[in-house]
Amino acid sequence: MESTRTEDSGGTAPPAAAPLSPAEIAARIDHTLLRPEATAADIARLCAEAREHAFCSVCVNPGHVRQAANLLQGSGVRVCSVVGFPLGATTPEVKAMEARAAIRDGASEIDMVLNIGALRGRDEALVLRDLRAVVEACHEGGARLKVIFENALLTDEEKLAACRLAMQAGADFVKTSTGFSTGGATVADVALMARAVASGGLGVKAAGGIRGYDDAVAMLAAGATRLGTSSGVRIVEEARARAAGRTAAPAAGNGDGY
Amino acid sequence: MESTRTEDSGGTAPPAAAPLSPAEIAARIDHTLLRPEATAADIARLCAEAREHAFCSVCVNPGHVRQAANLLQGSGVRVCSVVGFPLGATTPEVKAMEARAAIRDGASEIDMVLNIGALRGRDEALVLRDLRAVVEACHEGGARLKVIFENALLTDEEKLAACRLAMQAGADFVKTSTGFSTGGATVADVALMARAVASGGLGVKAAGGIRGYDDAVAMLAAGATRLGTSSGVRIVEEARARAAGRTAAPAAGNGDGY
Repeated sequence: MESTRTEDSGGTAPPAAAPLSPAEIAARIDHTLLRPEATAADIARLCAEAREHAFCSVCVNPGHVRQAANLLQGSGVRVCSVVGFPLGATTPEVKAMEARAAIRDGASEIDMVLNIGALRGRDEALVLRDLRAVVEACHEGGARLKVIFENALLTDEEKLAACRLAMQAGADFVKTSTGFSTGGATVADVALMARAVASGGLGVKAAGGIRGYDDAVAMLAAGATRLGTSSGVRIVEEARARAAGRTAAPAAGNGDGY
Repeated sequence: MESTRTEDSGGTAPPAAAPLSPAEIAARIDHTLLRPEATAADIARLCAEAREHAFCSVCVNPGHVRQAANLLQGSGVRVCSVVGFPLGATTPEVKAMEARAAIRDGASEIDMVLNIGALRGRDEALVLRDLRAVVEACHEGGARLKVIFENALLTDEEKLAACRLAMQAGADFVKTSTGFSTGGATVADVALMARAVASGGLGVKAAGGIRGYDDAVAMLAAGATRLGTSSGVRIVEEARARAAGRTAAPAAGNGDGY
């Protein structure tokens, strides 16, 4: 947790009135590459981009954490990895072990998928046990935990239950989506989640389908404190172009659900 | 490994000339429910269907293995689970640990996703280390290992390399797809894989998009020795109807990529 970064787990959304600078937007982006076919060369490119633009983190699969941590040493860019991803359907013990392994390899943020089937089946004890196992693994290792809901599969009532359980378990963030399901972040969901976790001081990460500056600004205005996207370079370039009064040429994302 | 089952890891495809009976087809089906939102009630239904139709196994996420193993005790239906699923992008150590945990919970077959990024990046040493770690965990626990390639993301050259590495590592089966990517099993891929692993005596599991009797028969004729599908009930009902000279009413699958 570098002190040079904006602390984004403080529960309050950025004031909508003051537009963020390109650097401020970059500092809220988890620069994401989770496609299964990503190679070491792809990860090296991701890390170089994250250094250049001073993104908050790179978000990579566990098999790439060690490489990313090595490449980003001294940069101030964190390494974020994923646990129980993207289905969330493994056991609490396995998720906790995955988190510990990723932290050992150099991750300081963990995005876990909650037990969606247990939530839908109203087995809140299992959802909570699952969350607590990973919270404990993360906090023992000095890492922060984001809980992914996969909102596309949930009712609003289930999203609110997930917010309550994530707070109860001591998670640091709630997060909308994996980017691998039928839908990603929506403004309505981000607003709902931001309201629900405000009292607990959790951050809100919007992820899935954030492809440009307008998407990013809409999510931040709705209460997101972090953005997961493979289009971070494009978003920052568009932000600079808007700040300079012109329009950037479109650039492609990483081609996944992010 | 129940002796009452057809041994399907023997390298030779079933003779295309002799059509399989509905029971013989059922004995080749991994009755599959891997959707992240599946509840305990959904798993109970899956297991009841597997008992009724004497499928080879149920294939479920790790969080459901214990429940399935309890429900299927004494039935002769195996429990199959998944590792590094569906992205394959975690470390060998984590995959091996996942396999051990699933076997402890009652799985006797493990379907793992290989390290797709390492294969595409031509890091064969890492692909092999990953495979060997899980082969060892499985065989120590008396379980069989299927290696999922995710063919939709690979070239034919990469598929053949994966067959070679799976044989070298001592895996028991090669498998076409997770059911969560951009494409599933194709007749051409099954034929290619069956030829490539014939000398090693591995089985071939076709999975992804097998929705009815005609799909099942086409995959078996191409050399598949196992089928992963959420449409097992429909396939067996269609097989019985064909055997009886009539056409079964269409039935829905489990709604995932299987």
